[in-house]
Amino acid sequence: MEKMKIKMLYADIKSDIEVIENELEQALNSSSHLLNDASVHLLQAGGKRIRPVFTLLSAKFGDYNIDRMKNIAVPLELIHMGSLVHDDVIDNSDMRRGRETVKAQWNNRVAMYTGNFIFARALQYVTSIENPRAHQILAKTMVELVNGEVIQIEDKFRLDQSLKDYFRRIKRKTALLIESSCELGAVVSGADEKTARHLKRYGYFVGMSFQIVDDILDFTATDKQLGKPAGSDLMNGNVTLPILLMKDDPQLAPYLTKVAVAGLTEEERQNMLALVRNSEAIKEATHISNLYLKKALKEIEALPKHPMKKKLRDIALFMGKRKS
Amino acid sequence: MEKMKIKMLYADIKSDIEVIENELEQALNSSSHLLNDASVHLLQAGGKRIRPVFTLLSAKFGDYNIDRMKNIAVPLELIHMGSLVHDDVIDNSDMRRGRETVKAQWNNRVAMYTGNFIFARALQYVTSIENPRAHQILAKTMVELVNGEVIQIEDKFRLDQSLKDYFRRIKRKTALLIESSCELGAVVSGADEKTARHLKRYGYFVGMSFQIVDDILDFTATDKQLGKPAGSDLMNGNVTLPILLMKDDPQLAPYLTKVAVAGLTEEERQNMLALVRNSEAIKEATHISNLYLKKALKEIEALPKHPMKKKLRDIALFMGKRKS
Repeated sequence: MEKMKIKMLYADIKSDIEVIENELEQALNSSSHLLNDASVHLLQAGGKRIRPVFTLLSAKFGDYNIDRMKNIAVPLELIHMGSLVHDDVIDNSDMRRGRETVKAQWNNRVAMYTGNFIFARALQYVTSIENPRAHQILAKTMVELVNGEVIQIEDKFRLDQSLKDYFRRIKRKTALLIESSCELGAVVSGADEKTARHLKRYGYFVGMSFQIVDDILDFTATDKQLGKPAGSDLMNGNVTLPILLMKDDPQLAPYLTKVAVAGLTEEERQNMLALVRNSEAIKEATHISNLYLKKALKEIEALPKHPMKKKLRDIALFMGKRKS
Repeated sequence: MEKMKIKMLYADIKSDIEVIENELEQALNSSSHLLNDASVHLLQAGGKRIRPVFTLLSAKFGDYNIDRMKNIAVPLELIHMGSLVHDDVIDNSDMRRGRETVKAQWNNRVAMYTGNFIFARALQYVTSIENPRAHQILAKTMVELVNGEVIQIEDKFRLDQSLKDYFRRIKRKTALLIESSCELGAVVSGADEKTARHLKRYGYFVGMSFQIVDDILDFTATDKQLGKPAGSDLMNGNVTLPILLMKDDPQLAPYLTKVAVAGLTEEERQNMLALVRNSEAIKEATHISNLYLKKALKEIEALPKHPMKKKLRDIALFMGKRKS
C-alpha cells in the first residue's frame, strides 16, 4: 500500500479515523495478558482501516456524528480483524503484512480465541446502536461472512469450480463486509433510502473489484510488497480468478497437480509465478476488476450532489488500481 | 445424565422446548454442505438444553410468550454449542458425550468455522429482540466467556494457581452463561427488577455448583458415563478443584509432573484416578459445590410466590447432585 497516497485520501476524516484507532485500542483491552499481547501485535500490524473509512464517508450523506458512527465503524473493523486472525489459522499463514501472524507467534488455539474475543467485542459496540435494521444488516453479514469462509474450505484445491463459484466466494469473503460498511454508514446516520441503496451497491462493487485486485497481486507483486510469499493463495489451495482463467493451460497443469498433493518447491513456485505473470489471465482478470470498478463509479454518479462523492470516487480508483 | 429424570423436570415446558429444538435445527441450516453436516452431527449429539430451560422458566415470572422468548433462548443455546465446538479444538478432544467431536470427524479448521457460524447465527436471532439491555447483557457475557477461555489457556498445567483463579475461570466458562440465561429470561419477559436480580444470582450459583460437579465427575464417573476418558481435564492440562485441593499430596506429585511433560500412560491414568477418587479432595469439592447449591436455593426463596419456584429448586438439586 502506498501509505502516503492513502493518507491524502483520508485527509477529510483524519481526526475521526484517529478516534476509531483509539477506540480499537480500547476495544482490544482485556484482563488476559495473552489477549492483550495478541491484540497489541494486531494493532501494530496496522491496516488500511478501509471499512471504517467507507462507513464514515457514507455517513456524511446523513446526519454525521462521530460519537454515534464510531459504534458501527469500530465493530466493522473488529469483524474484519477477527476474521483475518481466523483466516490465518485456516490458511496456515505465518506472515501477514510483513509481520508474524497471531497463529505463528502463539498458536492456532490462541488465534482462535483471539478472533472470538474480537468478535465478541464487536458485538459489545453494536449494542449501543438503537437502529434494529443496523443489527439485522450486521448479523446477516456475519453469517454470510462465515458461510463464505466455510465455502472457501470446501472449494480448496478444487479446479473443477466455475467462475460463479469464485464470485460467490469473494462476495461473501470481502464484498459483503464493504457493502455493509457503506450501507451501515448511511443507515445509522439516517441518510435517505435511495442514497443508502446506492452506497450499498457502491460498496459491493468496490469490494468485488478490491478482492480481484488482491487476488491478482498475490501473483504479480513481489514477496516484499506482499509481506508474504507471492503465490500464497494457490499454495494454500485458494483457487482465484487468474488461475481459473488459465487452468487449462498445459504449461500450468503440472504445477496445479503438484501444489495439491505435495506443494511446490521454491524453484517450482518461481516458475509458476513467471507463467501466471506472463499470461493473458492477468489482463483478463484486471479487465473484470475494472468492470466492477466502473459499476462502482456509476453508483456514485447516482448519489445526490455532495463533496464526498469525489472522495468515494478517488478511494474506489485507488483501491482498484493499486499496485501492491 | 439420567435422561428420564430430566424429562420429568422439563414436563411443564415440554412443547416449548420442542419449539426451541426445531428453531435450533433451522438456525443451523446453511448453504454449505460441510456446515450442514457438522451441524446435524452436533444436533444429534443432543444436550440437556439447560440454558433454554433456565431462560423459559425464568420468563414464567414475567409476561411469558414463547415466540418472543425463543429469540433469546435459541441464541443462548447456540452460544453454548459454538463454544463447545471451539473448546474441543483447544482441548484437542476427540470425544464428547460418547460421539466424535466436529474437530475429530473433520478437523480443527472446520470446527473453528462451525463455531463461528453458530455464533453468527446466535447474533442473528438476537436482532429481533428490541430490549437494548438484553443486547448488552448478552454481548458482555460473550466477551467474558471468551476471556475465560483464553484464561483457561493461560492457566493450563499451572499448579501454582490459587482457588481464586479456579473460581474466576469457571465463573466465566460456565456460571456466567447460566446466570445470563436466567437474567435474560426475566428481563426479556419484563419481570420486575428484584425478581430479575434474584434469578440472575440463582443462575450464577447454580452454574458454579454445576461446573464444580462437572469437574468432580471428570474424575469419579466412568469413561462410559462421561462418553470420554475419565481424567481428561487433567490430561488436557485443565487444573480443576479436586486437583487444586490435593496438589501437595506427595503420592499425586509424580503424576502431576508427568502429565505436563509427557502425558500419562493408561496404567498411570488408572492409578491417578484411583488416588483422586479415594482422596479427601473429592469430599471437599463436593462440599464446596453444595455451598453454592445452598446459595442458589436461598435465591429461590427470595422470589415471589410462583409455581415455577419448585421447578427451579428441583433442577438446581438435580444438577448439583447428579452422578453422571
